[in-house]
Amino acid sequence: MSQERHPIEAEIHPLLAQRWSPRAFSGESLSTATLRQLFEAARWAPSSMNEQPWRFIVARRDERDAFERIFNCLSESNRRWAGSAGALVVAVAARFSTRSGRENGSARYDLGQAVAHLTVQAMAAGLYVHQMGGFSADAAREALAIPEGFDPVVAIAIGRLGDPSTLAETDREREASTRSRRALAETVFAGSWGQSAPFTDSAG
Amino acid sequence: MSQERHPIEAEIHPLLAQRWSPRAFSGESLSTATLRQLFEAARWAPSSMNEQPWRFIVARRDERDAFERIFNCLSESNRRWAGSAGALVVAVAARFSTRSGRENGSARYDLGQAVAHLTVQAMAAGLYVHQMGGFSADAAREALAIPEGFDPVVAIAIGRLGDPSTLAETDREREASTRSRRALAETVFAGSWGQSAPFTDSAG
Repeated sequence: MSQERHPIEAEIHPLLAQRWSPRAFSGESLSTATLRQLFEAARWAPSSMNEQPWRFIVARRDERDAFERIFNCLSESNRRWAGSAGALVVAVAARFSTRSGRENGSARYDLGQAVAHLTVQAMAAGLYVHQMGGFSADAAREALAIPEGFDPVVAIAIGRLGDPSTLAETDREREASTRSRRALAETVFAGSWGQSAPFTDSAG
Repeated sequence: MSQERHPIEAEIHPLLAQRWSPRAFSGESLSTATLRQLFEAARWAPSSMNEQPWRFIVARRDERDAFERIFNCLSESNRRWAGSAGALVVAVAARFSTRSGRENGSARYDLGQAVAHLTVQAMAAGLYVHQMGGFSADAAREALAIPEGFDPVVAIAIGRLGDPSTLAETDREREASTRSRRALAETVFAGSWGQSAPFTDSAG
């Protein structure tokens, strides 16, 4: 399936090659043991000065009130499908360095790495991750009691793949679409900006 | 080795569990085929609105001028060891959305994910990655001709593990140290901020 969805041009690890962001989830709640693995993977991500500027608020689907608190922060278009995820997460960045007290310019970069590590661990457990910018950070701060100095950055749906026929038509169409990316030659430069790297020659 | 270095509390995938950021690299230059794989992995990372707000400038160790251009942007403490990496990279974030032209608030988060994917692919190829905040973004912009609207965010050393005895003493000590992270119970909350998740109970 992944090879149809991704016109990948060099062999990459299956945990990365097969990753995509589905909308059709199975509705099966995640186990606490699985969640523990996912967040342990995030925990060991690298970060600038080992600040670990990440926090996560998680709700399993069978924790009804908690799940709804996160679900209700999502945009309408994400609420169409995210209710069948096995867990919902809000990922939070710590705005200030614990050492200097000054703004941590690496916080969002490092949070992205931690979520990527969580995503790879999810793939290893047969789970898929769909990250959503479409949520209300203000609503999340209020509903989840996120204090000042910490910023909700992304909402995350995690679960087993479900049946795409259960989706609304517009989501079903997106679900069936082939993934696309900018050509490698426009993404990686050799030695200086704009110089195409020789290994990108055959990239589309 | 990784199990000594990381007091990991739940079984996570070896590509994540064994990852760390070494200083002792072998001095062996990376092949173009390997680089192609690494950047193909980065290329397929997810990003908000599929903006892919990442660019990379890469120099293999045997491309002497290009390698030195990046090397010379590094902080003194990173120059002590990074010269034996097989390749150096500067990772760049696109400041503006290609759709709206407005500032892309997800750019650094997404760049972090792309570098994390590259790192996982590197581990799969037997390579290690050491990301460095310690470099001059101004020097990199000038030396690598990075245009306005694009920001150098991190420098990256990639290579095979080398002999720690070749390091300066202070680096050798860091190299031998055990990795540490904040406890899972202080990182993941259940349903609301500050509520410890049951699966973090036995976390240290």
